[in-house]
Amino acid sequence: MKLTVRELAKRLGCPYEGDGELEISGCSSLEGGRAGAGDLVFLAPSQTASQARLRPLLEATAAGAAILPPGEAFDRLPVIRSENPHLAFIRAVEIFHRPFRPAPGVHPTAAVSPTAKLAPGVSIGALSVVGDEAEIGPGTVIFPLVSIYPRVRIGADCLLHSGVVVREDVRIGDRVVLHNGVSVGADGYGYLRGPDGGHLKIPQVGTVVIEDDVEIGANSAVDRAALGETVIRKGAKIDDLVMVAHNVEVGENALLVAQVGIGGSSKIGRGAILGGQVGVPDHIDIGEGAIAAAKSGITNDIPAGGFVSGSPHLDVRVWRKFWAAAPQLYGLLKEFKRLRARVEELEAELARLKNS
Amino acid sequence: MKLTVRELAKRLGCPYEGDGELEISGCSSLEGGRAGAGDLVFLAPSQTASQARLRPLLEATAAGAAILPPGEAFDRLPVIRSENPHLAFIRAVEIFHRPFRPAPGVHPTAAVSPTAKLAPGVSIGALSVVGDEAEIGPGTVIFPLVSIYPRVRIGADCLLHSGVVVREDVRIGDRVVLHNGVSVGADGYGYLRGPDGGHLKIPQVGTVVIEDDVEIGANSAVDRAALGETVIRKGAKIDDLVMVAHNVEVGENALLVAQVGIGGSSKIGRGAILGGQVGVPDHIDIGEGAIAAAKSGITNDIPAGGFVSGSPHLDVRVWRKFWAAAPQLYGLLKEFKRLRARVEELEAELARLKNS
Amino acid sequence: MKLTVRELAKRLGCPYEGDGELEISGCSSLEGGRAGAGDLVFLAPSQTASQARLRPLLEATAAGAAILPPGEAFDRLPVIRSENPHLAFIRAVEIFHRPFRPAPGVHPTAAVSPTAKLAPGVSIGALSVVGDEAEIGPGTVIFPLVSIYPRVRIGADCLLHSGVVVREDVRIGDRVVLHNGVSVGADGYGYLRGPDGGHLKIPQVGTVVIEDDVEIGANSAVDRAALGETVIRKGAKIDDLVMVAHNVEVGENALLVAQVGIGGSSKIGRGAILGGQVGVPDHIDIGEGAIAAAKSGITNDIPAGGFVSGSPHLDVRVWRKFWAAAPQLYGLLKEFKRLRARVEELEAELARLKNS
Repeated sequence: MKLTVRELAKRLGCPYEGDGELEISGCSSLEGGRAGAGDLVFLAPSQTASQARLRPLLEATAAGAAILPPGEAFDRLPVIRSENPHLAFIRAVEIFHRPFRPAPGVHPTAAVSPTAKLAPGVSIGALSVVGDEAEIGPGTVIFPLVSIYPRVRIGADCLLHSGVVVREDVRIGDRVVLHNGVSVGADGYGYLRGPDGGHLKIPQVGTVVIEDDVEIGANSAVDRAALGETVIRKGAKIDDLVMVAHNVEVGENALLVAQVGIGGSSKIGRGAILGGQVGVPDHIDIGEGAIAAAKSGITNDIPAGGFVSGSPHLDVRVWRKFWAAAPQLYGLLKEFKRLRARVEELEAELARLKNS
Repeated sequence: MKLTVRELAKRLGCPYEGDGELEISGCSSLEGGRAGAGDLVFLAPSQTASQARLRPLLEATAAGAAILPPGEAFDRLPVIRSENPHLAFIRAVEIFHRPFRPAPGVHPTAAVSPTAKLAPGVSIGALSVVGDEAEIGPGTVIFPLVSIYPRVRIGADCLLHSGVVVREDVRIGDRVVLHNGVSVGADGYGYLRGPDGGHLKIPQVGTVVIEDDVEIGANSAVDRAALGETVIRKGAKIDDLVMVAHNVEVGENALLVAQVGIGGSSKIGRGAILGGQVGVPDHIDIGEGAIAAAKSGITNDIPAGGFVSGSPHLDVRVWRKFWAAAPQLYGLLKEFKRLRARVEELEAELARLKNS
Repeated sequence: MKLTVRELAKRLGCPYEGDGELEISGCSSLEGGRAGAGDLVFLAPSQTASQARLRPLLEATAAGAAILPPGEAFDRLPVIRSENPHLAFIRAVEIFHRPFRPAPGVHPTAAVSPTAKLAPGVSIGALSVVGDEAEIGPGTVIFPLVSIYPRVRIGADCLLHSGVVVREDVRIGDRVVLHNGVSVGADGYGYLRGPDGGHLKIPQVGTVVIEDDVEIGANSAVDRAALGETVIRKGAKIDDLVMVAHNVEVGENALLVAQVGIGGSSKIGRGAILGGQVGVPDHIDIGEGAIAAAKSGITNDIPAGGFVSGSPHLDVRVWRKFWAAAPQLYGLLKEFKRLRARVEELEAELARLKNS
């Protein structure tokens, strides 16, 4: 696939400057120095330090053309201008780099129940299993080696990659992407302690509902509710190796970075962001738009808009002050003892002075 | 499935009050407000704050009937009385909500070795693999897309969900449940450092033994021993995304909450509880009934009955005091400097006084 | 498989002492007390406390023979002498304990694309999938239920265990071992925030390169680059449930212990060691040979040879001092108030004295 700068600018709906006949065949990052003569790069408006850091890479790049914001002076290469260079670049990436998608149809080695309902345009990969009365919406791609248990409902234009397992009765919306090895609907972790120290299983007979436009990363697990539903609301994005326990509700557009763990019945607010390896215990309420920095260990509810860090979590300002001070604690203990000795000496001297 | 309150009470072996002819068709939680007219709810004896919080939900519920402890005054709905309402409720859930279980038999697409031994009543799902000389006990269900390596022995009435892999020679007891994507018996992580900085693999030729009534959550991994056995003792319950390294022994009825990691050759005592994301290094001994709060980073042995928190872990009382004090450290450093200046001033004044 | 001590010593290229005709049939660890009459054990040179701890186990062992360093006095059993007893023991383990390896050939139930290229001696297990134009090198074993997407290239003598998924275009070197459930090449986690609070997916169209002699533990995930490559350099060893994000570079011979998470575009230096559950955010540079203790939460670059611990990470010496002092903070706050009161008393007394 090759496009001239002129053709590409037209498809992106953007103006261009310089040699419009130069041919572009791919996209590359300024970082890493991998861009070649046929590559397109971009630079976002240099408001941030990280962007400012990239400008010298633009000067040095071997790329063929660049997408730049209107104000950015540069004429060594053809330039496509965009108010939002990153967005225009994403569109260009989508033009040049088509990810692998299997053709529609059911592979002859797949084991599809005769009572499953497959919409037109569905692709069922080799050696995948679709259980009784499962329903799969139009355009959805089930890659090879996926297991769909009975009565699962999956919407339109979803991607379920190899190794995904969806347990019985789970409901999945449209345009949901489940990466390799994702488990949806496994039993939650609930037991009643018996008199002998043993654990009686609390039946996990609820389900999971995944709304539209959710993406879940490789080897993550979203457990079914004990009763009722575990819910991932629309637009939430979940990274790899994340654990979402039974009866959790993850809010619309929330972000759960890799290896986050959320305990049973907790609620993650709309647009909240949990950094990597954050842990949330059972029955916690994280407010709308709240942020927990990576590795936070949440110990109680976070109000809407809160920003916390640490384990146990602290308001991020308190946390920063604490850790700025922490390396001085060891010295402080020593100095404190010295000061106390000085005070004792003062007390003694004063006593001597009074008695003299 | 519908039962009258009278029939249900009889099956639960409990007395009831109110309209015994009311029909119940399912179970629901008081929390979440999802209960409908055909639902049964329950309330445990209100000894705890969380139970007290649920009582108003009972007043407001749209459920059809409730299981309550003997003392709990309530006559708006039919009531089934039980000394242990949660236990009675679990029995009711088991009556109304039967989880999906495939029928016995070997699916024609499964690849079962002719030398494998399948007991009567075994179910082998579509596209599952059972290796040479593997033995599977009566009533065990192998869901679709499970891989059983050669010479594995699995007991009776186990459930192995899609995506489970059991490596060669692993031995699994009765009534064991392995959820989606569980890996049992992968190589442990052991290397000998070579003179060139490279790592020589230490062969991992031991195995894993999982005793009766163990449950392991989605995408967890229990590695085989280098030599000898990694052992999960009976009744231990392991949550999702937990990592149990080579040669570990997890004690009877121990609980490992999600994302716990246990290093090689460590020993987790009987009935011990490791909270979510706890990390235990190599060669550590966690005593019987010990508790490590979520996110603890264990640094040395924990005695039986110990209760620790934090990373590095502290006795939980020390940990609580430390974190109660921690936010004051930053201010303390400032105040300390001020106090030291005052002491210096005092010293100077006293010297002047003595010299005057 | 049985060998006399004489035959075994010869195969190991080592001298022996005592009864050379004694038969050995396996290897065992001194720890755990499992060794029997036909077992070989070893003891490394007793420079460390842990080795010193093992010497009494040697006295008591029921093993048949031992590999010992030259200086170690012991004549109760036949002894094979080696300057590096652990290395010689590993060689013996490899002689007696052959791990299961399926025979070469393509299982009739595997779904191999007609355009895939399989080298001689390849084994493709039951119900595995090999996509279009994938290439698999000589001697490589694909166990059952593995999914290889199109255009993947895998070198010689690799092992891909059940549950492994390798996404399109990934390149894997020679002698690479991927344990159960490993995901290689799933999409990285990258989004552009939209004006409505939604997240626009940044296409993840790069790939993953895994060099020679890499081993990756069960259920770990290595994500493909947004553009360019995520790279695992030769000899790196990755434990279970580790997450390597897009565009990361893991250096030669680096060690990533279980449940480590590495954020996008970070670089782990040659021979660096990240302990269990360490978290590294995006765009971090960990220097050559640096060490992060278990559970470290890295907050900025670590220089070559650095050794850090804690979250936020501190130089390990500072971290040790801090945590030695930390349990005293609570008491210090109380004592500080008492001291301040004493200073105030002194100030008052001095004022009285001056005024008198």
